[in-house]
Order: sequence, then structure tokens, then C-alpha cells
Amino acid sequence: MTESSRIPGPGGLRADARRNRERVLVAARAVFAERGIDTPMATVARRAGVGVATLYRHFPTRDALVRSAFTQQMDTCARTLAEALADPDPWRGFQRLVETVCALQREERGFPAAFAAAFPDGAAHHTQAREHAERDLMTLVRRAQAAGALRADFHPSDLAVALVAHCGLVTALPDDGAASRRLVAYLLQSFRADAANMPLPPPSSLSPDRFPMAADRP
Amino acid sequence: MTESSRIPGPGGLRADARRNRERVLVAARAVFAERGIDTPMATVARRAGVGVATLYRHFPTRDALVRSAFTQQMDTCARTLAEALADPDPWRGFQRLVETVCALQREERGFPAAFAAAFPDGAAHHTQAREHAERDLMTLVRRAQAAGALRADFHPSDLAVALVAHCGLVTALPDDGAASRRLVAYLLQSFRADAANMPLPPPSSLSPDRFPMAADRP
Repeated sequence: MTESSRIPGPGGLRADARRNRERVLVAARAVFAERGIDTPMATVARRAGVGVATLYRHFPTRDALVRSAFTQQMDTCARTLAEALADPDPWRGFQRLVETVCALQREERGFPAAFAAAFPDGAAHHTQAREHAERDLMTLVRRAQAAGALRADFHPSDLAVALVAHCGLVTALPDDGAASRRLVAYLLQSFRADAANMPLPPPSSLSPDRFPMAADRP
Repeated sequence: MTESSRIPGPGGLRADARRNRERVLVAARAVFAERGIDTPMATVARRAGVGVATLYRHFPTRDALVRSAFTQQMDTCARTLAEALADPDPWRGFQRLVETVCALQREERGFPAAFAAAFPDGAAHHTQAREHAERDLMTLVRRAQAAGALRADFHPSDLAVALVAHCGLVTALPDDGAASRRLVAYLLQSFRADAANMPLPPPSSLSPDRFPMAADRP
């Protein structure tokens, strides 16, 4: 395995080509979030500041672009989770994960849902990554509980509940960042052990493996 | 104004006719929630346990039935709010309002959203009721804050934020009552003054008058 094959993006691309590819994917995610996945390819190229020919060289079809944009999002989520686990303060790691995933939900709006609807097989391609994420999430939760920061009766499914609810909020109110941040702050507080002063009903049967597909909507 | 005109349902109906009408509306809300507002009228009649002729006598058109079912829902919300205000314990009144409205959201699922989409003028008919509800909500919030039970930095828009998020949750997971109750418990705890141990970001600009139309979705 060469060094370059471990860098995001197909190995063998020259540095400037790789940068262009990244730029196109970031632009595609923003455009798909704002206008849907049917937005013309030319709009994506314009947003990325590259020519249409360059865009098509990297992504010969819209499907290829949409799938790669979604994969990039999955990579971002995986990186966020890895960073949370690497934080020496278990609560801060947990808190940052929630805040960062919710910030992603704000930015991506309906893109993950549109992707899931248009490419029902798409999520299956990421099964292994999701199983990995689920394990890491369990570790993150148990670590924060062992440190006495996360309430002992917090259930891993609560994270999915919070993310699905937050996703519903940003879908209904896409321009209200304050609402999103307010909800996140309330939820994080209610998850802290030092605020565990009210009994909770039984946890949901919702599987925590919905992370980071909590944006799925019927 | 006669006594009967203050009873829900058109005045002048005999008691059994009024009961049939109520039963049809309750069945209609359940059926519309489960199967959408295009469900055949015969299905509603069957659920209500009345003949199709009886249903059409009360509601000559589907539009009339849908509008009346929605009005009944608004009446239920108004009654819930009145009961919350009448509770001598300000926090318990506030808590019951949140729990009852969320239980309604669970039951009604997509009905209010489908109504708003099909009858864009429908909500306008209820403007006066909504203004009234907004005033009562403000009273409920201020009263719970004055009692020292609801945190002082709780903003009335937080209630709308919570209800929109909860609505997103029950829309995405219509069969997961546990998820809904878990979220409600977490949110209520985070609203309590005695758990006010983390600073909050600025409140949303979302108007609290979205109650009880927090179920609106784009």
C-alpha cells in the first residue's frame, strides 16, 4: 500500500487534480443540500470554480458525483467520530460529536434523505463503515459514562433519537441555525450526569446503528 | 346564545346525532393519520362504526370532513392549553401541556402537515384561535418562570423548537412511542430551573405562534 492510497480520493491523482476533486465534492454537497440532487452539473462546476469538462473528467455521470458526495459525507462523519474518541476528555469528545454531527445535519439538510430515496442500495455499500461507527459510538458512550459525566441511564439509542429529532428540526426550519443550536444545548444538558434529576421512560428500540444515517426520512 | 351552541359541534343536533358526528371526526383523524387524507370515506365510516349515509349526512364532501377533523384537533389543543393554565401547579401545567401536545403529535402523525398542504387557506381560518393560544402560552411560560420551576432563560420559542423537533421525530419514526417519550422527558428536564447548569446559545427567532401548528412541515 503506497502513501497516496491512504489519502482520501482515488490514488494516483496528482495533487492539483485531487484538490479539484475535493472542491467539486464539497460544492456538490452544498448545492445538493440547497437545491436537491437534480441540480444541473453546470451549477456544481460553477460553485466549485472549475470548468464543466473538469467536473466530468472526475465524475462522468451524475450518479457517480452523487455517490461520491455521499461517500465524502460518510468519511466526514467517520473522521468526526475518530476525533471524538481521541479526545482525552470523554465528555468533551461526546459533546463535540453531537455538536459536529448536528452542524453537518444543518449544512446537508435534505441531501442524505434525497440520496437514500434515489439510491436505496447506496446505504448498503456502507454497511461495514456503519458497523465500525456503531462500535466506536458504544465506546464513546461507555467512556463518558465511566467518567461520571454522561448519565448512567443514557441509552445509546438516545443519541439516534436526538439526531433524528434534530434532523426533523433542520428539515422543517432549514434557515434557523439558532433553533438547531438551542435544541442541541438543551439535549446535551439533559444528557449530563449532574442534571440527572428526573426519571426517564424506557429507552427506544431504535438501533444506534442509524448513525450517521439519522438523516434518513421516509 | 343557547346552551347547546356552546357545545362542540353544530347546535341543534340531537344528542345521538352529535355523538355520531364526534365519533366520525375521531375516526377520521385516526384514519387520516395512518393512511393519509385521501383514504376512502367508506374506510372512515367503517372505523367510526356508522353507515356511509350517516357520514355523508354530517359531511357532504371530503373537504368538509377533513376541515372539520382539523378543527376538532385545534379544539383539542385549545382545551389542552386551557387545562394547563387551570393547573394550580405552574410547572405541572407546563409539563402536561408539552406531554399532551407531543402525545397528539404521535397520534396525528402526518395529518396536520397533509392538511396544511391540501388546504393552504385552512390555517388562516384559525388565526384568531392561534393568537389566543399564543397569549395563553406566554402566560403559562411566565407563570412557571415566576414560580422558579422553569429556567429563567427559557424563551417561548424554545417550546416551538421542541415541538417541531418532536414532530420530526414522530414523522420519521411513527411507531416508536418510546423514542418520543424519551425525547420529551429529556427536553422537560433540560427546561427545569434546577438543571440550569449549562449556558445556552441565543434563542431562535422562530415565533411561538407556531403552536399548535408545529406539525407543519414543508
